[in-house]
Formats: sequence, C-alpha cells, structure tokens
Amino acid sequence: MSALLASLPHPVIAAPMAGGPSTPALAAAVSGAGGLGFLAAGYLTPDRLAADLAETRGLTARPFGVNVLAPNAEPVDRAAVDAYARRLREHEGRWGVALGEPVGGDDAYAEKIALLADQAVAVVSFAFALPEPAAVRTLHDRGIEVWCTVTRPADAPLAADLGADALIVQGIEAGAHRGGADDTDDYALLPLLRLVAARTSLPLVAAGGVGDGAALAAVLAAGASAAQLGTAFLRTPEAGTSHVHRAALDSTRPTALTRAFTGRRARGIENRFMRDHDPAAPAAYPQVHQVTAPLRAAARAAGDPDGVNLWAGQAYPLTRALPAAELVGRLVAGATAASEGAWRRLNRSRLDG
Amino acid sequence: MSALLASLPHPVIAAPMAGGPSTPALAAAVSGAGGLGFLAAGYLTPDRLAADLAETRGLTARPFGVNVLAPNAEPVDRAAVDAYARRLREHEGRWGVALGEPVGGDDAYAEKIALLADQAVAVVSFAFALPEPAAVRTLHDRGIEVWCTVTRPADAPLAADLGADALIVQGIEAGAHRGGADDTDDYALLPLLRLVAARTSLPLVAAGGVGDGAALAAVLAAGASAAQLGTAFLRTPEAGTSHVHRAALDSTRPTALTRAFTGRRARGIENRFMRDHDPAAPAAYPQVHQVTAPLRAAARAAGDPDGVNLWAGQAYPLTRALPAAELVGRLVAGATAASEGAWRRLNRSRLDG
Repeated sequence: MSALLASLPHPVIAAPMAGGPSTPALAAAVSGAGGLGFLAAGYLTPDRLAADLAETRGLTARPFGVNVLAPNAEPVDRAAVDAYARRLREHEGRWGVALGEPVGGDDAYAEKIALLADQAVAVVSFAFALPEPAAVRTLHDRGIEVWCTVTRPADAPLAADLGADALIVQGIEAGAHRGGADDTDDYALLPLLRLVAARTSLPLVAAGGVGDGAALAAVLAAGASAAQLGTAFLRTPEAGTSHVHRAALDSTRPTALTRAFTGRRARGIENRFMRDHDPAAPAAYPQVHQVTAPLRAAARAAGDPDGVNLWAGQAYPLTRALPAAELVGRLVAGATAASEGAWRRLNRSRLDG
Repeated sequence: MSALLASLPHPVIAAPMAGGPSTPALAAAVSGAGGLGFLAAGYLTPDRLAADLAETRGLTARPFGVNVLAPNAEPVDRAAVDAYARRLREHEGRWGVALGEPVGGDDAYAEKIALLADQAVAVVSFAFALPEPAAVRTLHDRGIEVWCTVTRPADAPLAADLGADALIVQGIEAGAHRGGADDTDDYALLPLLRLVAARTSLPLVAAGGVGDGAALAAVLAAGASAAQLGTAFLRTPEAGTSHVHRAALDSTRPTALTRAFTGRRARGIENRFMRDHDPAAPAAYPQVHQVTAPLRAAARAAGDPDGVNLWAGQAYPLTRALPAAELVGRLVAGATAASEGAWRRLNRSRLDG
C-alpha cells in the first residue's frame, strides 16, 4: 500500500513525459504545490538522469517520482522494421538527415534502477512492462515505492503479486504511449478503474483524459486515490514542450492512436505523418522509435507540425497555458466544486424533504 | 433545457435497447423506482410500439421515454453489401435459413414520430442521426422533450441549434451501437463529457461503461445531469435479454467494436462471428443488419454464443442479476458513498486542519 499517495496534500500527479516535456522545474513545481511531480527516465542517459535528480532536489524538498520504461520481451520482426524504414527513406532528402538505426536495446534499464535505488527517490513507476521481481526488491529495500502501469483488468493481479504499492490505471483516452505490457487493449478509463478495483485492493492512480477539475473529481469518485495528468501540464511554462507541440495544442483537431512514430501505439493529434504511415507501421518498439527519431528532431526544429509526434490525450482542447502550481490549485478547486455538485444531485430528495 | 431531467428523483436512466432487451416491464420498473425508463422503437412496427406504450402506461404513472433510430442519409455501397452477403452464405446451410434481403428503409420513422407525438410521451431521444427540424417542432408542440445523441464535441452545437432539450453523450466504452451521426469517433466518455460541456450549456446524459454506483458518481462529478445505463439492466428479470446473451454476460472476456453484425459499429463481447467477419464488414446500416438478422435469430434460438451479437459495454463484468428497482437503489446508494469519498479526499487538508 502506498504511504506516499496517502500523504499527498492534493491528489494531483504530473505524469512523466519522456522526450522533453518533463523537467526538474515541472516536477518541483507540482510537488511544491502539494501534488506529486515526476521525472521521465526514458531516453535519458544515466548521467543525465542523475543530473536531473540533483537539479530537482535543489528545487524542492518535497517527494517526487521517476518513471522507467521497462524492457518488453516481445520479439520484434526485424524484416518489418526494415520494410517500414525503406518506406520512410523519402523523408531523408527532405530534411537532409539519415534515418536512425533500429538497434533495439533496453534504454540502460539496469543502470537506471541502480541509480534510483542509490538516490532513494520516493517512488519509481514502470511502464511498457512490469518490472522483474529483483528490481522490486532492490527498490523496496531502499524504502522506494513501486507503482506499475496497467491498461487491462488482467494485469492488476500480476502487478499485485509482484508487490506493487499502487497501480497506475491508464485509459485509452490517454495521450502518448500506451503504458501497459500489451499495447492493443482499448479500455476507457472509467470502466477500467472499476474493473481493476474489483480485482485488487491496491490504491489506484487514474491516467488518461483528465483535463480539468471536474474530471479529477470524477476519477476520485470512481475510486482512484489520485489522478496523473500529462497533457494538462504540457502548456505550463515549466514543461520542456517544443514550440511546434505547444502551438498544436491550441486547436481542436481530433487525436488518434498510431504506431507510425515509435512502433508502440500512442495517442497524438492527427497529422500527415500519422495518416501517411500508420497503416504500414509495425509493432516494433523501440526500433521504429529509433528509425524515426532523426526525422522527428528535424521536423521539430523546423517547426513542421506534420512531421512530429504531437502527443496529446483526448481532453487536450481543455488545456490552458498556466504556471504548474496555479494549475494544481485550479484543478483542486474545480474538483471540490464538482464533487459537491454530484453529492447535492444525489441527495436532492433528501435535501428537499 | 430539460425540465424532465431536473424533476427525476434519481439520476438513473435505463438506456433504450432495441431488439429485445427493452420491455414495458423494465421501463416501468425503472421509472417507478425514481429513475427514467425507456422503450426502444427501433425494429418495432408502429402497431407493436403503440401496444408497448399502452402496456407501459398500464404499469406506471411516472414519465418514461422512447428512443427512435433516425434515418441516416449516408449513401450505402450496395456492391459491398452483396460481397459481404456472399461471404456469409456458408452460414445458411448450417442454420437452415436464408440470409435476409438488404432492403434498406427508414424503420417507419415518420409513422413513429406521429405516433409518439399523438401519445405525448415525456421524451423522445434520437440516435444514428439528428432529427430533422420538422420532427423537433412536432414533438415540442406536444410538450415532448427532444434529446439527441452525440459522440463527438462538434455534434453538440448542431443539436443545440436544432432545439434539443438535452444531449445524450455516448463514450466509446458503451455497449451496442455507436449512437452518433458518424460511427467512427473514438472519444471516451469522461473527456467527451468535458469537451461537450465546454461547447454547450444543455444538460448532459452520460452513456457508456457506467456499471455501478461509483461510476454514476463519477459522471455526475464530470458534469452529467444523469447517467444512462444499458448493459447494467440487461441481467434484470424485467429485461427481454435472450438466454444466450445473459449467459455470456457472466464472464470476463473482452469486448470489441465491430460492423460484422449490422454494418454500424457496435460493441459486444468478442466471439467467432465477430472475429471471422469483422475485417470484411462494410459500413452499411441497416443493410448488413437485414442480411444477418435470420442467422442471428437462428443462432440465438440454438443458444450458440458464437453466432449472435452479444452487445455489452466495457464494464459488463460488473453487472449483477438484480430486479431493476433494486438495481436503481443500489446505484444511488453506491454513488452517494462514492461522491462523499471524493469530497473527503479533496478536503483532507481542510478536515485535518
């Protein structure tokens, strides 16, 4: 059971957003406001992660968490990756860059676990796969909580058996990558929370499409101990979100799930790259991520919204550009009003009587 | 604005379920318990609908509603329907029945509107398309409320301009047919409610994946005036749910969206017919519905769960076989406790201080 979740002044968690948006400044601001900030270890070198940990500790004395992308043992079809890369070769000339090499790898998983254990962060959350028992023991031995991401009810007892202290329950409306071991599930957050709650007594963190205070109140009513919001924090000044990504969030275009950018299903605002390549993209993470990375970096630098992954949850049109601490305050105030409204509606006959 | 919604003792609506499950007994039981029952006019002859209205009125003096499937003007590719029918011909021999004729038609739409106006039911809700302005005028002239189903934010202002009194906001987790004008949207209920609330001040009815009291409290917190539950009522003794469908609901198999049964995307428990034919099924409602109807009737009579449409929302494993009035009471009690829990979590620091 998570003592950390129970101790939070406000049930608001900044989702880890690898690839730039999560920063020490954002994590510290959210933790300082009474929520829980997160760093995203994904794609960072261990040295850079160590530097980010030190920087965050310099900015806040409050607890914060770190998310790790666990290696997934699913075999990858290398021929399919090569065929997809051939299809993308046309983009090389446009941007004057070479496609990346699909080298695979585990993102320095073991070194990161050792570093986080050594640094005794408050909580390590896992996505893309459940951690192996040894990692859980290593972290627990240092008093570090372990949270696991689940996207289907059947994963809940597996994570509980591993000794997870809380489950991050991610619905299909969530922005960016599907965080579960299998990326094909399609459970929406609300039914998934209730189905997971029926299978475990672990505390639940609700993730996906929570864009404002009313939605926060909703997931608390549905049994979550807190909500984890990513997209809502993308437009804060503390986030490292790129200019092209920030500009795209100021729209109402639909989102869609795609493997076109990374080989793992992820939700972003629809654009041309997604439409052109989604049907051909294989299930091959991190190989497709590695192949497309130079193209995306070039399009990002050039400010081309049709060439980059514009990760966003379905509620993204509700986001506002506010400082992170102010956003936490507004979320809590909005949630309090919304939960009072729900209670009043349910007790109307009693109140009238 | 909906005076009816504001007058309901309990914010619980029984979703209309065409094809058998919705019955006068179920509608009357839910209305009698302080919720709002619904009849489903879809697939009924006007005479049968008139008889059901009379029977329901004999069972309750409380208001209830009727849902109408509005004709959708989308053109249908007849060649694609014929190709799909050829593929299904193998099933004819198995069941000793002929495939149905894809005759199209509008399900006696005009006669049903005239009948409902004449009978002055409390509310008529529309699915599959927005009603035309003349139908809205006809119903409003008789004091009948008009509720429209939306599955994407852009539909909300269109329905408001038509004069709708409330919007039924259906998320992707919902069982059975997608109720909006376009069946390709994929908005989950929670973000959809918030996005629709940002575009209209009409009262909202939340539909999709609401399986218990906690989920009811969640959608009220998210701004809904009531929740419309279908799957939750399928196992009540008052429902006309088939035996094979009831038995299938006592499982935890995943659901999926498919056009295999009717040509319009709908969510049901995965089975062989869905897996075998989904990839080939065209977007052609009601033609595909008409082609497969004899096969489904035969499989239903034979108790074969792999040959029938087992409509169910994602929360279906939470359903319990309870009398409808008892279910309404449990939903409200569970929602009250859940909304109190959410309020207490949000006010913890205040309560501790």
